[in-house]
Amino acid sequence: MAIEKLTEEECDAALADLDEWKLADDRQSISRVVKFGDFSAAFGFMTRVALIAESMDHHPEWSNVYNTVDITLTTHDAGGLSNRDIAMAGKIDALL
Amino acid sequence: MAIEKLTEEECDAALADLDEWKLADDRQSISRVVKFGDFSAAFGFMTRVALIAESMDHHPEWSNVYNTVDITLTTHDAGGLSNRDIAMAGKIDALL
Repeated sequence: MAIEKLTEEECDAALADLDEWKLADDRQSISRVVKFGDFSAAFGFMTRVALIAESMDHHPEWSNVYNTVDITLTTHDAGGLSNRDIAMAGKIDALL
Repeated sequence: MAIEKLTEEECDAALADLDEWKLADDRQSISRVVKFGDFSAAFGFMTRVALIAESMDHHPEWSNVYNTVDITLTTHDAGGLSNRDIAMAGKIDALL
């Protein structure tokens, strides 16, 4: 099943509900930086996101430095943003 | 307790036993990239490293994309590499 890339209009509509996410200049990905009290809290969050990612079979590109997690979502198979990224961003936001 | 930065000689001696780690050009950090079969294996490894990091109170700077984990170790309090980084690299290698 091909994963469809969102049109520019679909993308803008979806992002209207995702205030904390920043669209990349090339419009190929969205990203959010989240800060926690310490590493334990940051990694606990990452573990919850990992469980979501595995259940969705859709995985973030992310980095962690102590209490900070930087998450980027994109759909390589679609060559940009897809509904999977929007769905995952919503699930991540629901954890926070 | 101040954490002492390794001298250049100490650093080279320590790295002689850490074949898989690459010293940064500025000699301030070491890094290793590890690939796994899939995200589950990669994140399982990250979880084990997180437990080590928390118990050592020394945390990696790292990123993950699907099955790949890129780990950088440095000691900000020492302004470069310390024995903590060497010890953590050894513990990470022991997992692999």
